[in-house]
Amino acid sequence: MPVKVTMDKIVALAKNRGFVFPGSEIYGGLANTWDYGPLGVEMKNNIKRIWWKKFIQESPYNVGIDSAILMNREVWVASGHVASFSDPLMDCKECKSRFRADQLIEDYIKEKGLDISIEGWTNEQMMEFIKEHKVPCPKCGAHNFTEIRKFNLMFKTYVGVTEDSKSEVFLRPETAQGIFVNFKNVQRTSRKKIPFGIGQIGKSFRNEITPGNFIFRTREFEQMELEFFCKPGEDMEWFNYWRQFCMDWLVEFGLKRENLRFRDHKKEELSHYSTATTDIEYNFPFGWGELWGIANRTDYDLRQHMEHSGEDMTYTDPVTGEKYIPYCIEPSVGVDRLMLAFLVDAYDEEEVEGETRVVLRLHPAIAPVKVAVFPLSKKLNEAAYKIYLDLKKKFPAEYDESGSIGRRYRRQDEIGTPFCVTYDFDSENDHKVTIRDRDTMEQIRIDIDQVDKYLEEKLKF
Amino acid sequence: MPVKVTMDKIVALAKNRGFVFPGSEIYGGLANTWDYGPLGVEMKNNIKRIWWKKFIQESPYNVGIDSAILMNREVWVASGHVASFSDPLMDCKECKSRFRADQLIEDYIKEKGLDISIEGWTNEQMMEFIKEHKVPCPKCGAHNFTEIRKFNLMFKTYVGVTEDSKSEVFLRPETAQGIFVNFKNVQRTSRKKIPFGIGQIGKSFRNEITPGNFIFRTREFEQMELEFFCKPGEDMEWFNYWRQFCMDWLVEFGLKRENLRFRDHKKEELSHYSTATTDIEYNFPFGWGELWGIANRTDYDLRQHMEHSGEDMTYTDPVTGEKYIPYCIEPSVGVDRLMLAFLVDAYDEEEVEGETRVVLRLHPAIAPVKVAVFPLSKKLNEAAYKIYLDLKKKFPAEYDESGSIGRRYRRQDEIGTPFCVTYDFDSENDHKVTIRDRDTMEQIRIDIDQVDKYLEEKLKF
Repeated sequence: MPVKVTMDKIVALAKNRGFVFPGSEIYGGLANTWDYGPLGVEMKNNIKRIWWKKFIQESPYNVGIDSAILMNREVWVASGHVASFSDPLMDCKECKSRFRADQLIEDYIKEKGLDISIEGWTNEQMMEFIKEHKVPCPKCGAHNFTEIRKFNLMFKTYVGVTEDSKSEVFLRPETAQGIFVNFKNVQRTSRKKIPFGIGQIGKSFRNEITPGNFIFRTREFEQMELEFFCKPGEDMEWFNYWRQFCMDWLVEFGLKRENLRFRDHKKEELSHYSTATTDIEYNFPFGWGELWGIANRTDYDLRQHMEHSGEDMTYTDPVTGEKYIPYCIEPSVGVDRLMLAFLVDAYDEEEVEGETRVVLRLHPAIAPVKVAVFPLSKKLNEAAYKIYLDLKKKFPAEYDESGSIGRRYRRQDEIGTPFCVTYDFDSENDHKVTIRDRDTMEQIRIDIDQVDKYLEEKLKF
Repeated sequence: MPVKVTMDKIVALAKNRGFVFPGSEIYGGLANTWDYGPLGVEMKNNIKRIWWKKFIQESPYNVGIDSAILMNREVWVASGHVASFSDPLMDCKECKSRFRADQLIEDYIKEKGLDISIEGWTNEQMMEFIKEHKVPCPKCGAHNFTEIRKFNLMFKTYVGVTEDSKSEVFLRPETAQGIFVNFKNVQRTSRKKIPFGIGQIGKSFRNEITPGNFIFRTREFEQMELEFFCKPGEDMEWFNYWRQFCMDWLVEFGLKRENLRFRDHKKEELSHYSTATTDIEYNFPFGWGELWGIANRTDYDLRQHMEHSGEDMTYTDPVTGEKYIPYCIEPSVGVDRLMLAFLVDAYDEEEVEGETRVVLRLHPAIAPVKVAVFPLSKKLNEAAYKIYLDLKKKFPAEYDESGSIGRRYRRQDEIGTPFCVTYDFDSENDHKVTIRDRDTMEQIRIDIDQVDKYLEEKLKF
């Protein structure tokens, strides 16, 4: 019987073992912000590293950039975010609670078991539905709401010493626009020919009304976005290529295929500029949730920036001389929710010798600690510690000398360490150590000088 | 004669080759923000990687974290930033120009050749000096200023749907406080004993009045900070340890020792909580500038947070049972200005066969591209491209087939690529390629299957 993974278990493990702590915890926290602890930062860095390796470094098509979080306000005017990156908000006039109108309706539909999709509804349509069905306030039960108003999700601040509209800037709500505005700079300096992509990893910020589900939806989050530019007409071919590439990447690094699914957007769900969008969803303990969005954004973004900035965004084919604005395929994924998926998927419990063993079956490339070194007895500390220091030059490693070996194995199992090395009394004479595998719990004996080669081979990806 | 490196040359190279572009350039930029292009992001990532490796991964003392940029407002009250992280601003009443009073005075002192240090002066002292010396406005020459007022350098924004003091938050002006508030969480989960350190890499934001000198001083910047906790009384020993450790790190990764110096702060310069501070300065084209600050922060921060949050920040020695608030040594460095120092230091020009060769003599660990592969003729494309794809799995690599080999070498020299591999007509038969060294320009012939081993050895750090 497969183990039941609950969010409570994951959150508790994350906090107790130093993956994720509540942000500003000693001051009572701050609105669903989270801090990554010693293991969390290593795991998050590993996820970013394997994305960068497969999407940028190894790719003959793609290059990376790292653009600023603060951008000229006009970028967000051109992209449409100033005008329409907003949530439909309404208040209950009785109890003063505040809701997202779309969520209010969706919860109502679910509760009543209605077969209705509100995707693409306007504020007017939502208001009409709420009135018609006399949808009650989930807090106080009254049906007495304000009108729906738009609440822009971009965080606003001011650059310089005066606070006026001229100095107003936003924290970027996505990394993508940093790529679009640099399209020409990157193309010119990298001398790339279409098709080629530009990828970026970085923080984005959205003033969400209802963040939640641990690190699944947070106001501050990290994105890994690729904007892949191609010739119009070849866009659907590339859309399908990247759609599959992302799924393969997830499975390669350990997510179970049965916990993943494609969800192609229906026509009425599509953003006005998109001709095709697919979400890769993951089966979280709280239900299926979007992990990766792959969208055909057409030439919308480059065209918008061309019109607003006056900068020429066309590309000239060096062979045919043909001139066009490239189409763009965007696979976009959040690092934080990806990490949550990897944690949930890797979590396992099993009975071993009458005790429950909790084990994170993380892909070795993602595991925060690659190897732990134990002396069988404290008398063997010196020699074992030397092995630890040597291994640490190549791999994130831990040293543990306290408690029984069984207990030390459990501690490493729980954080997903793929290999444990034990130095025992025989090691003094035969110059060998025991390497124990996290998943099979099998042990082999190996020459001390061969340990790093053995691990290197096992940790290759 | 050593080559004269100017900021103009560095900025032009950075822009032309894709290291650094002006932020939001197509919209006329934004107040000294910068975007890192394909080479820049690789170089910046390399700098972060070598810091993390030497300060965190290899260290038996230190662990990492990654805390949120948005923190509870009380954090900045406790740290003292809300009350006093500000610049002394004044306006000229005649021409309405705005100045930092301290800079106004420093420029005046410099111009007049006076031997005065204004470090640690209060606003009153500055105002008195300006009046006494009738310091003129640098713009219009008048001597008619407003009083000095404090301008807080933290960017402010609002979380949630209402904009009031309750929802006010700041973009962190340093990563350090994210470490202090997590001291207990990290100590508990990592089971570290004093002395130990917590390191972090991340973005910080300061609403500087006068950012400048390219990426030396920017409003949005990335920090690498270590907070090293030790027993009171052992703090100066550790202060000296990390002071030297940072200098050694800089020299190990290629900065010339003669371009670096220690500048110990005089007593009157020290922050009120610090008992010792040293800057490691670099000799930039615009003069000596702070690169790394190493400060003994005593128990100030933990004590402040203990008092403001009510959380116990004391540490109990597991052996002696002694209880104390740890002292903290902080080596803090900015990634962006470090990258500038590495670029400036590596820049070289030399005469080769009657032409000027521009070469970035970057340490191989920092160079954005590790190896470039050239086919001698386009006829050899297929075999050469295969070598490129294989190498790319292990190292950031480029492929270049256009122009003469000499021209291709120059292009790689200019971006600091340590090795170029050329596949020629003999390669077909002897299964060997030529590897050319960036610095010596020497060429050796080596078996194709041996190239990755050769590079791995050369690129080890």
